[in-house]
Amino acid sequence: MSKINVGIIGFGTVGAGVYEILTSNRALIRKRVGVDIEVNKIVDLDIETDRGVTVDPDLLTTDVKQVLDDPEIDVVVEVIGGLTSARDIILRAMERGKHVITANKALLAENGAEIYKAAETFGVNLGFEASVAGGIPIINALRHGLSANRIQTAMGILNGTSNYILTKMSREGLPYDQVVQEAVKLGYAEDPPTLDVDGTDAAHKLTILISIISGVPVSFGAVYREGITHLTPDDIRFADEFGYCVKLLAIIRNLGERFEVRVHPTMIPKDHILATVNEAFNAIYIEGDFVGPGLYYGLGAGRRPTGSAIVADLMDLAREIRLGTRGLMPPLAHVESGGDRILIQPMDELNSAYYFRFSALDSPGVLSNIAGILGEHSISISSVIQKGREVNGSVPIVMLTHVAQESNVQKAVSLLDDLNILTCKTVIVRVEGQEVDCHQ
Amino acid sequence: MSKINVGIIGFGTVGAGVYEILTSNRALIRKRVGVDIEVNKIVDLDIETDRGVTVDPDLLTTDVKQVLDDPEIDVVVEVIGGLTSARDIILRAMERGKHVITANKALLAENGAEIYKAAETFGVNLGFEASVAGGIPIINALRHGLSANRIQTAMGILNGTSNYILTKMSREGLPYDQVVQEAVKLGYAEDPPTLDVDGTDAAHKLTILISIISGVPVSFGAVYREGITHLTPDDIRFADEFGYCVKLLAIIRNLGERFEVRVHPTMIPKDHILATVNEAFNAIYIEGDFVGPGLYYGLGAGRRPTGSAIVADLMDLAREIRLGTRGLMPPLAHVESGGDRILIQPMDELNSAYYFRFSALDSPGVLSNIAGILGEHSISISSVIQKGREVNGSVPIVMLTHVAQESNVQKAVSLLDDLNILTCKTVIVRVEGQEVDCHQ
Repeated sequence: MSKINVGIIGFGTVGAGVYEILTSNRALIRKRVGVDIEVNKIVDLDIETDRGVTVDPDLLTTDVKQVLDDPEIDVVVEVIGGLTSARDIILRAMERGKHVITANKALLAENGAEIYKAAETFGVNLGFEASVAGGIPIINALRHGLSANRIQTAMGILNGTSNYILTKMSREGLPYDQVVQEAVKLGYAEDPPTLDVDGTDAAHKLTILISIISGVPVSFGAVYREGITHLTPDDIRFADEFGYCVKLLAIIRNLGERFEVRVHPTMIPKDHILATVNEAFNAIYIEGDFVGPGLYYGLGAGRRPTGSAIVADLMDLAREIRLGTRGLMPPLAHVESGGDRILIQPMDELNSAYYFRFSALDSPGVLSNIAGILGEHSISISSVIQKGREVNGSVPIVMLTHVAQESNVQKAVSLLDDLNILTCKTVIVRVEGQEVDCHQ
Repeated sequence: MSKINVGIIGFGTVGAGVYEILTSNRALIRKRVGVDIEVNKIVDLDIETDRGVTVDPDLLTTDVKQVLDDPEIDVVVEVIGGLTSARDIILRAMERGKHVITANKALLAENGAEIYKAAETFGVNLGFEASVAGGIPIINALRHGLSANRIQTAMGILNGTSNYILTKMSREGLPYDQVVQEAVKLGYAEDPPTLDVDGTDAAHKLTILISIISGVPVSFGAVYREGITHLTPDDIRFADEFGYCVKLLAIIRNLGERFEVRVHPTMIPKDHILATVNEAFNAIYIEGDFVGPGLYYGLGAGRRPTGSAIVADLMDLAREIRLGTRGLMPPLAHVESGGDRILIQPMDELNSAYYFRFSALDSPGVLSNIAGILGEHSISISSVIQKGREVNGSVPIVMLTHVAQESNVQKAVSLLDDLNILTCKTVIVRVEGQEVDCHQ
């Protein structure tokens, strides 16, 4: 076996990046894996648009069967994205004994169980490093470097667009809408960037991470998610006054019997290492039971970083094919199943500290009224900021709480929001990391 | 093959950590790799001392032959450290067809070529993740996740002791000697911590990293190294005034035809992500041609993080043994040799920015004299701090330069130090990262 034949399905940004790396670093890749990795076919519905790379026109086709039906092709790189066709293509490729490498986080989050299973059934490898934080080889770290550890905590900034928006809101004090408009104009965000800002994209990636960490394909529906669209520059400024910054975090915490798995805006101390992750960068903070705390930081998206992840998977695969082996690394990195399911803690039972911003009428007794209802729900206040300035007939009352239970928080805030002392829906942000400071 | 038999040679801190992880996470490890990893023998000259783990006394022996001559043992974990016996044990184990996993950075730096070659000759695997930054799976990242990339820059904080000392000097303004004394007293540093603070330990690790990056075993003697013992709180304070902090950095830069490979105290901008790495933490900042910039951060040493790295190597090995394959990953991660040697730029030819602290007589014309000689050597000054206060008959004159050549800098400073206008040897610190800001 002197070369591995690749069919790329999808010739958009990422597909072109894969082709560019394989061409540009061809000699280096051959030295490292001992065989050539050659692109035999590239499939796209549109093979006219210039993708910024020079491709032999004979490689291009609009017919996916030219890849799926070609017995010479060892591996299919699926980079069309989306659910329906991608699923169909991946399953058909596997049925035909082809290995699959994909960047498709939505598909793995939604249909992972089926696809992981198919890879095992048909004895092929499935690579998906590119599906989570493209430029950060976090799946590889979990599969190899950290594999001796029970992962206790993982906290990730997994969506570059929302991190960019929060960074701009924080640095420039601008409102969400204005920052998004500028980001769209500059090409940093899609128009509208719905799945990025509502937490869906980060939750897709978190679903993949918890599946690898536990060895069990977790259902996307079990992952709590909440976006950043309701945050205001005020919230970010108040967080700052309390010594925190606001990030859209994807959190896994191993509680022993069950896992917390959730995505939402989160206040973290300004001296937490994740607080230094700005702009469109991604990062994953991980604690293992033996390795201790660690951080993995890099670019989360883009043609070149995502392409780098896909080619890394191709190279790992090429090493196996060269030696005539396969299945070294099962999709979820567990040779023996971790069990059929894991228990995910219902969000209602979360214990966390909280930030509240109440928009209150500027009248006597309001604070005591709020504090009373919180107290009745076992929510204890650790700090309060109340400033005199009235805006549209209300004043902000901002609080941090000690650890409380989510269900109590939701009940108390819902009660308060129904009283006529508050003029807008209360903003709730969960607070993490008071106990964690990896700089110590 | 339902289990892998391991002989641990060396039952100090790290050996006990390996045993503890294999015992404590046994079920997890089996799920992940599909076989048991069992310790059959533990060798140490001292088998009496309590290592903090419960071990069946039958496993313990003082006779290394009980491991080397036992055909049942698949893999030798060498954690005795040092050069002579460790080299002998590793080579004898390999001759007998045993795989080897080692944490021995000094040995790999000094004798790597011989050991990498022996692994290939005898067809065994060599794992050494633990030899560089134990808790950071950086070797794994270079071998797998980043393997599609030509690594352009790597900058590491690879010695926890010196980073701890610099952090304390910086935060508390204390002199080097006092911080070291306290660190020794608290058990954070050896007494004396010579190899940590003179750059040797970091240079050992850098030698291993450049060998993997280039695919060629680099000779330790070719790596420039300089320690932190000459730095004063003044230097750290002046760096701060210029917007920098001081770290002992291990630097690799790919110049195309040749590499910069060097270890020395370095000023980096305070907003560089490496500037946030404090206390005993390690980190490696890496730029690849496609993946872009990234950071890998964690604990560099200690029983549990180093043990975690060794067990990760054992697990990768177990996966191969289970499938009846071997040699998936050659020691330097290149199947085809990268060539017999790489070119390392002589230190004299380095181009860098510099920080100088002159201890000058407080008399007229001194600054112009200094500036004149620097100018004659094509060294152009970008900033100067001269403060009036005289200490022991001299005043500090502190400068940052634009990029200049090392040979010119050494000549100019040597000339200046010989003039009778300076009262002490001039302190030189190289300055990095003006061009690099991964937070943008």
